[in-house]
Amino acid sequence: MAQREHPDTEIRVWAPAANRMEVESGNERIPMTWEKGGWWRASLPTRPEGTPYAFLVDDEGPFPDPRSPWQPEGVHGPSRTLPVEPFPWSDQGFQAVPLGAAVIYELHLGTFTSGGTFDSAIPRLDHLVELGVTHVELMPVAHFAGDRGWGYDGVALYAPHSTYGGPQGMKRFVDACHRRGLAVILDVVYNHLGPEGNYLARFGPYFTDHYATPWGAAVNLDGFGSHEVRRFFLDNARMWLRDYRVDGLRIDAVHAFHDRSALPFVEELAQEVHRLGRGLGRHLVIIAESDLNDPRTTLPPEAGGHGMDAQWSDDFHHSLHALLTGEEQGYYRDFGGMKPLARALEEGFVQAGGMSRHRGRSHGRPFGKPRGDRLVSFAQNHDQVGNRALGDRLGHLISRDHLKAALAVTLLGPHVPLLFQGEEWAAGSPFQYFTDLRDPGLGRAVREGRRREFEAFGWDPEEVPDPQDPETHLRSVLDWDERDRAGNREVLEWTRSLLRLRKGQPDFRDGDMARVRWSHSDGWLVMARGRFRVCVNLGSRDCLVPIPHVPGPSTMLTSSDRVRWEDGGMALPPGGVGVVRGG
Amino acid sequence: MAQREHPDTEIRVWAPAANRMEVESGNERIPMTWEKGGWWRASLPTRPEGTPYAFLVDDEGPFPDPRSPWQPEGVHGPSRTLPVEPFPWSDQGFQAVPLGAAVIYELHLGTFTSGGTFDSAIPRLDHLVELGVTHVELMPVAHFAGDRGWGYDGVALYAPHSTYGGPQGMKRFVDACHRRGLAVILDVVYNHLGPEGNYLARFGPYFTDHYATPWGAAVNLDGFGSHEVRRFFLDNARMWLRDYRVDGLRIDAVHAFHDRSALPFVEELAQEVHRLGRGLGRHLVIIAESDLNDPRTTLPPEAGGHGMDAQWSDDFHHSLHALLTGEEQGYYRDFGGMKPLARALEEGFVQAGGMSRHRGRSHGRPFGKPRGDRLVSFAQNHDQVGNRALGDRLGHLISRDHLKAALAVTLLGPHVPLLFQGEEWAAGSPFQYFTDLRDPGLGRAVREGRRREFEAFGWDPEEVPDPQDPETHLRSVLDWDERDRAGNREVLEWTRSLLRLRKGQPDFRDGDMARVRWSHSDGWLVMARGRFRVCVNLGSRDCLVPIPHVPGPSTMLTSSDRVRWEDGGMALPPGGVGVVRGG
Repeated sequence: MAQREHPDTEIRVWAPAANRMEVESGNERIPMTWEKGGWWRASLPTRPEGTPYAFLVDDEGPFPDPRSPWQPEGVHGPSRTLPVEPFPWSDQGFQAVPLGAAVIYELHLGTFTSGGTFDSAIPRLDHLVELGVTHVELMPVAHFAGDRGWGYDGVALYAPHSTYGGPQGMKRFVDACHRRGLAVILDVVYNHLGPEGNYLARFGPYFTDHYATPWGAAVNLDGFGSHEVRRFFLDNARMWLRDYRVDGLRIDAVHAFHDRSALPFVEELAQEVHRLGRGLGRHLVIIAESDLNDPRTTLPPEAGGHGMDAQWSDDFHHSLHALLTGEEQGYYRDFGGMKPLARALEEGFVQAGGMSRHRGRSHGRPFGKPRGDRLVSFAQNHDQVGNRALGDRLGHLISRDHLKAALAVTLLGPHVPLLFQGEEWAAGSPFQYFTDLRDPGLGRAVREGRRREFEAFGWDPEEVPDPQDPETHLRSVLDWDERDRAGNREVLEWTRSLLRLRKGQPDFRDGDMARVRWSHSDGWLVMARGRFRVCVNLGSRDCLVPIPHVPGPSTMLTSSDRVRWEDGGMALPPGGVGVVRGG
Repeated sequence: MAQREHPDTEIRVWAPAANRMEVESGNERIPMTWEKGGWWRASLPTRPEGTPYAFLVDDEGPFPDPRSPWQPEGVHGPSRTLPVEPFPWSDQGFQAVPLGAAVIYELHLGTFTSGGTFDSAIPRLDHLVELGVTHVELMPVAHFAGDRGWGYDGVALYAPHSTYGGPQGMKRFVDACHRRGLAVILDVVYNHLGPEGNYLARFGPYFTDHYATPWGAAVNLDGFGSHEVRRFFLDNARMWLRDYRVDGLRIDAVHAFHDRSALPFVEELAQEVHRLGRGLGRHLVIIAESDLNDPRTTLPPEAGGHGMDAQWSDDFHHSLHALLTGEEQGYYRDFGGMKPLARALEEGFVQAGGMSRHRGRSHGRPFGKPRGDRLVSFAQNHDQVGNRALGDRLGHLISRDHLKAALAVTLLGPHVPLLFQGEEWAAGSPFQYFTDLRDPGLGRAVREGRRREFEAFGWDPEEVPDPQDPETHLRSVLDWDERDRAGNREVLEWTRSLLRLRKGQPDFRDGDMARVRWSHSDGWLVMARGRFRVCVNLGSRDCLVPIPHVPGPSTMLTSSDRVRWEDGGMALPPGGVGVVRGG
C-alpha cells in the first residue's frame, strides 16, 4: 500500500437528534458513525489546500458545519478544512500589556480601509503604534451573510469572513499586530446568531424559546443539551485565543444571555479564558459589554462575581455625551448635567440602584470598590455612533474644542480608554448601519425596521440611510487623506499628546478612580489623577477654574493658547483643557 | 360638625396606565385622585366591621384590590378593609428558635383537620408540641379561586383564604401557635399567580412575556414598572411577618423568578425580611424552594450570595426515596444507590456540576463549605407525595421498618428536618392533587392536564383522581383516629423518640455536615454526628455494620428488638436502626 502524503481528515459533528448523518465532499457522500453523546464522525481524504465538506442531516441539506473553520463560498456554501501547512507565525515572545496600561482602538475591518480586508489594514497599524494604542479591538469577524455588515449577525462562528481574507488573512493580521507590539481583542457574539445562514438548529438544540432577545432566538444556555451548546461557544473562544493568537475577547451583550445555571455561562467562559491563558503563559483578557450595571460582572468568583476582567462603561459615555450635546432622547434621558459624569469618574456606575426614567424601573447597584481597570470607557464607539439615524460622530455634533475636551476626559480618565476608528483625527465619515442580506425578505425587513425605529424619534423615514444600499457602507469607510487637513491634524496631535501623557505618567494608569470637583453653572470640571489635575471647560462660556496657581512649569498640557493662569485660578475658554501637576 | 367615630379609610392603588379610576363601595362610586408614580387615592367612610370596596379601571370592573386584605365573598367579589378593632394578640415575648434547632412540620389547612380551618387546626397544636416540632409551616393561605386547593394558585396575595377563616382566623392561629412556643413559617408564591381570579394585569405591568414559567405568565421583576411590582411582593412579605406575626417565609420555586437585575429580587426580599426582623427585634427567616443547586441562594451577600437563610434539599429527598423504593422515573433517574445519599449528607448538593441525565445537561455547582442549617431536608413533603398520580405516601411504598429508618436518617441528619402532616404516624390517607376552579374551561383543563401528565408515565388515565372531584380532597384529609392504631402508634413513638434525641443532644444540631460510611452491597450506612453514630440498614437483608462495640450503655436508641451487637459490629435487620454514642 502506497503511503499517502497526509493522513485522513477526521470530521466530527454534534447532532444528537439525527437518525442518519452523512458528509458530502466533492462528489462523494460518506456515512458518518454515531459516537457517544450525540457526536458523529467520519474520515475524509485530506487535500493539502483544505478539504471541502458539508453535512446531510437525515437526508436534508447539505448544510455547512456549525464549527466550520472556513467558508470560502459564503455562509450557505460548503465548509472547508484549513490548509495542511501550518501558518508561519513570527510573533514569538509577544505579550500584551495589562488592561490597566491599555489603550484600545476599535476597528471595523470593512471600513477601516477602502480595501476592507485584514491585509489592507496591516499598513495602517504603524499609525496606531504612533498614536499610542496598545490593543486593537476588531469588531466581529465571524462569517455573516453577504459581504458588508457590522458583524453582529455572524452565523459561521468559527470562520473568519472570507471577504476580510478568511483564516489566513486573519492570522497574517494578528501576526502583524504582534510584531508591532499591538495586542488584539476580538469582539464575539454569543447571545444570538444572525438571521441568514444560521443552520445550527438543524443540528441540535442550540436555541430556546424559553427566553426572548431583541435579535432573535435566545441561545440555549441552561436547557436540555446546553452542556454541548456551551461547549460550542467555549471552544470557539479557545480557538480565537489559541489558534488565532488573539489576546482577549470582548463579549457582546452579556445582558442578553439568559441562563439560570448555578455556574453562569459568563462565569464559565471567564474561567475557560483564564485557564487557557495560564496554560499558554499568556495574559488573556475577557471584557463584557453589559447593560446590567451589576458589579458581579467583574467581581472575582471568590466574591460571588463572574470574573470578567472588565466591562464597557456606557454610563461614562452617556454622561459625557448628554452633557456635551444636551441630547435627552432615549437612554440619554437618565443623564445630563455634570453630576452623572462626576459619578462615572468617581464611582464607575452612574445608575446604581436608583430609578431609571428611561427604563421605568430601578437599575443597577453600586460598584462597591471600583477599579478603573475594570471599566472600558469611550467618548464614541461603533454603537454610539452607528446607532444614530445618520451614524454621525460626536465631532459632527459639537465644536472641535469640545471634542478635544471629551478626548481629554476619556484618555486621561480613570478607566481603560477606547477610541473608535478615526476618532483620533475627528474623521468626517459617518459610521452608518449597513447590511448585505441576500434573502430579499430579510433585506426588506432590516430596511423597514430601521426606518420605523427612527420614525418613532421624529425622523423622516426617507432621510434614514438604507442599510442594504452599498453606498451606505461606502460612506462609512474612513478617508485617510483627510487626516492631513489642518483641523484633523490638530485633533490627531492632541490625541497623541494625551496618550503620551497617559503612557508617561503612571498616575494615569494606577487603577484608582478619579476624585472630581465641578461647577455645573460655570461648566468646569477638575479630575484629580494622582498628582495631576485635569481641568476642562465643558460649558459654552469662558470660565475660571478655582485651583491654586502651581509654581514651576505651569500647565503641562493645554488644548489652546487661551488657557492661562489668572488671579483665582485657571482661565479656560469653552472646550479648553489644562493639565497641571499638583494644585 | 359632629365628630365621627372613625376617621375615613384611605384607599390607594397603583394603576399607572389608567386614565380614570373609581372606587365602588356599596352603592357609591367615588372618583380617585391621581398621585405621583402611578398611584391613585380616595377616601371612604369607615365601617367598623370592614369597608367593602372594588375598583373601576377606565370604566371596566369592578375588580378587587390587588392588595386586598380580605375577600369575604371569594376572589371575584369586592375587597374589604379589616375590622377597625385591633386584634388582641396574646403572644408577648415569643421568640422563634434558630433554624439550626428547628424541626419543621408542613401542614395544609384544608386537610390537616376535617374542619379545614385555622380554628379547627388549633386543638391539634398540642400534638405537634408533644411531637417535638418547633416550626409549623403553612402551605399557602393566600386566597385562591374556590374552596379547595393546595394554595399555589393564589390570586389575592394579601388576603388569607376565607374558607380557612380569613384574616381574623389566621391571627388566632398564629397567636395560638406562639402561645404554645411554636413558630410559624408561611409558604408564599411570588413567581406566578393562579389562573382564575387574577385581576392584576388590569391594574399594571405585573407580568411579562419575556420569560415563560410552567404555570403561566412570569412576574415582571426586571422590566418597565418592575420597581412597583417588586414592592407589591416585598410589602406582601412584610405584611405576613409584621401584621400576622409569622416568623418566616418559605419562598416557592425561586428558580421560576426570571430577573436580570443587578439586585436580584430574591436578594432584595431576603434583605427586606432581615431588615424588618432587626427593626422588630425578632428572628425572622426566609427559606427558598430552589431547583438550581446554586450555593449563591444561601450564601451571604458579602460572598456574592442572595442571603436566604436556607433552602429545601430535594437532592436529599430524591437520594433517599430512590434508594428505598428503587424508583427510576423522572428526576429519580439521576439518583439511586447509596452514594447520592452519602453525598447529600456530607456535601449538601448531590448534583454539583456534573451531568444530569434527567435534565440532559450539567447541573448545579458544589455547595462550598456546606452548613446543615442552610438546608431543609425531608423524607416526604406535599410535592413529593402529592405530585404522584395517587398521592401515595412513602409509607405506602416501603415497609414500616424502612419508613422508620428513613425517619432516622432525616430527623437525626445534619439538615433542618421537615415532616409532612401525618408522616409522624405513617398516615394512611394519601395527599392527592385537588382544585376547585369555578371557571368550567379551567376546571376541564386541570383535569385533563393531570391525566395526560400521568398517561405519559404509563398510567391508565381513568385511575388518576380527578382534581376537581370533592372526593379527591376528602380522601386527602388526615384521619386522626388512626393515630391510635398499633402500627401507627409505633411509628409515632419512634418519631417522638428521634426528636427527643435530636433536641437533647447538641451534636445533632451543631450545623456540621455528617461524615458517612456505607456499603452499597450490604445495604448499611453509618452517619457520624459529633460523638454519635446513626447506623441504618436500608437494604433488604440482615447486615452487620462493622463498627466497634462501644462499652457502657450500649445502643441508645434502636428501632427493633432485633438490633444487637455481634462479633464484628452491630447486627441490623432490614430497616433496622441503632444509634450509639462513640464508636
